[in-house]
Amino acid sequence: MNNLYKLSDNIILSDDRQTVLIIDQTLLPNEEKYISLENAEQMYNAIYLLKVRGAPAIGIFAGYCLAVLAGKNAACEKETFFKKINEDHDYLASSRPTAVNLTFALDRVKNAAEKNKDKTIGEIIDIMFDEAISIHKEDIAMCRAISEHGLSLMKSGDGVLTHCNAGPLATSCYGTGLGTLLLGKEKGYDFHAYVDETRPLLQGARLTAYELNKAGIDVTLICDNMASIVMKQGKINACFVGCDRVAANGDTANKIGTSGVAVLAKYYGIPFYVFCPSSTIDMTCKTGADIVIEERKSDEIRTMFFEKPVAPEVKCFNPAFDVTDNSLITAIITEKGICYPPFADSLRF
Amino acid sequence: MNNLYKLSDNIILSDDRQTVLIIDQTLLPNEEKYISLENAEQMYNAIYLLKVRGAPAIGIFAGYCLAVLAGKNAACEKETFFKKINEDHDYLASSRPTAVNLTFALDRVKNAAEKNKDKTIGEIIDIMFDEAISIHKEDIAMCRAISEHGLSLMKSGDGVLTHCNAGPLATSCYGTGLGTLLLGKEKGYDFHAYVDETRPLLQGARLTAYELNKAGIDVTLICDNMASIVMKQGKINACFVGCDRVAANGDTANKIGTSGVAVLAKYYGIPFYVFCPSSTIDMTCKTGADIVIEERKSDEIRTMFFEKPVAPEVKCFNPAFDVTDNSLITAIITEKGICYPPFADSLRF
Repeated sequence: MNNLYKLSDNIILSDDRQTVLIIDQTLLPNEEKYISLENAEQMYNAIYLLKVRGAPAIGIFAGYCLAVLAGKNAACEKETFFKKINEDHDYLASSRPTAVNLTFALDRVKNAAEKNKDKTIGEIIDIMFDEAISIHKEDIAMCRAISEHGLSLMKSGDGVLTHCNAGPLATSCYGTGLGTLLLGKEKGYDFHAYVDETRPLLQGARLTAYELNKAGIDVTLICDNMASIVMKQGKINACFVGCDRVAANGDTANKIGTSGVAVLAKYYGIPFYVFCPSSTIDMTCKTGADIVIEERKSDEIRTMFFEKPVAPEVKCFNPAFDVTDNSLITAIITEKGICYPPFADSLRF
Repeated sequence: MNNLYKLSDNIILSDDRQTVLIIDQTLLPNEEKYISLENAEQMYNAIYLLKVRGAPAIGIFAGYCLAVLAGKNAACEKETFFKKINEDHDYLASSRPTAVNLTFALDRVKNAAEKNKDKTIGEIIDIMFDEAISIHKEDIAMCRAISEHGLSLMKSGDGVLTHCNAGPLATSCYGTGLGTLLLGKEKGYDFHAYVDETRPLLQGARLTAYELNKAGIDVTLICDNMASIVMKQGKINACFVGCDRVAANGDTANKIGTSGVAVLAKYYGIPFYVFCPSSTIDMTCKTGADIVIEERKSDEIRTMFFEKPVAPEVKCFNPAFDVTDNSLITAIITEKGICYPPFADSLRF
């Protein structure tokens, strides 16, 4: 049974099912440290403080957490047992209220328990763990399928430009945007990854460079404004990005800077690929114009990560995302297959 | 006579002609501090340690320095006086050997002295100061002419995206790339400047945002990867950049990231303007392919300015410049006028 629990490196259920271990993402890349969470408050803080981040990863983690917390109430009467599941569910769900995967995973584990309320508490706890493990396994299978489809588009020796981070830390194995590179590495492909640092929060430098380097892939870190020169020099055969939301017409919201990479790729004649679970495609959202862009604080540009402020106290414009027009996207790759333009047709599975 | 000496804010000759004052650029934008240089070693270090930077500014500064140092030898015999001029000239010239403007300005002040060697030492010193002042005045006139031409292309209310820094600190008054905005401000134009932070060395955040803000211009700082979204949102009416070298066909080398801005401007249908003294146009350099791009250290991307390293110890690609293809440039603006494509013709003054 132990092997089942360690399905990926970033989220691990302990053998005794008393704790969940995660790699503390806030310490990366300078420190690679696992932390062990055993009570609800610690689990809440791990999510709230971004020690675990990435929508799928948060969901997987929370699923395990709810099962672990239920296990600690095995000696309760059944009514109290279910009352505590509800309390833990709501408490954990409030750690990042806008993260859809978080509530989704917590609901699944809670519902699995409720559907089996006539069984013994011991059996119910086992069912909750099984459900949490299923969530984790499904994510791995989905990332694997996305990566297999992606790999069919590439050949060994290719140079790939990535923006932001859509790797294993944010999901489980493989990731979405990075999965093709990681699966390719396993299969003996020799990829050359050019990693945009991704200002202002530097997810490319801190996480993508770390993940690809750890996997033994050839990594070159660049500043975002160097994407043009590496494309011009012929170093890039494809651009890989994840995404936060895809509209019905294929317009894609992703980390700020993505649309600029797509414009450059179009200009230099390089394929631009978007990787995502099919659940990211929002058919109720007609075009990118319907997607509201979150604006964040100036501090992230002027002071965060720096020894001292790098700019005077001027206004900053700090959109977290931008929308890439469907005309700039070569293909959108989901676990169900590769979608080519016109996306209004190909995205209807 | 005093007013003549303070021709611009960044380089000032003291009233008694004993010292040169500069704003210490290494402390910007956190501290706005003038330092007073009175001996050759201090002057050498001010250049070497980048307290004064920007090719034209270094030239102006060095011209004053050589005159000030000569003034201190007024009591010497004439032979010794000229020997010391030569020593000071060579010493200051060695502070940044590749800076063409530095040697050019030092030569001019030294030659002015030598051409008048039969005059009294007092008269020769006055001539040296006059020559240094001429260099400063010529730079101001050139920047002013560039800015006047630039302003003829704009209207009040326009949004302008800038990349890197080509402002007064690097020259004297106005600057090249920023001159149009500063002159426009004086004339009552209401510009909205969007300033690329310009990774990895952040010249946009540290210097351009500081200079434009100080001049009372509406400044919004953005990360380099936000250029696409501000253009898409219709905020930008023109892009302004300086340049380091222009080839005979109009291909332009400038700070890394410039070519990416130009590709985006083309895609979004926004004019892309390059500002430079005509001396920057190198007719011996046929195309951008002949321009060698300096590559700099990884540290500038991974560690510089940061509290701790922001990426694992991976390879970085850190080109200091890129070349913008002439087909992406709307016009090149020099003190002699506005050059439109085909540049192979229009750049031959």
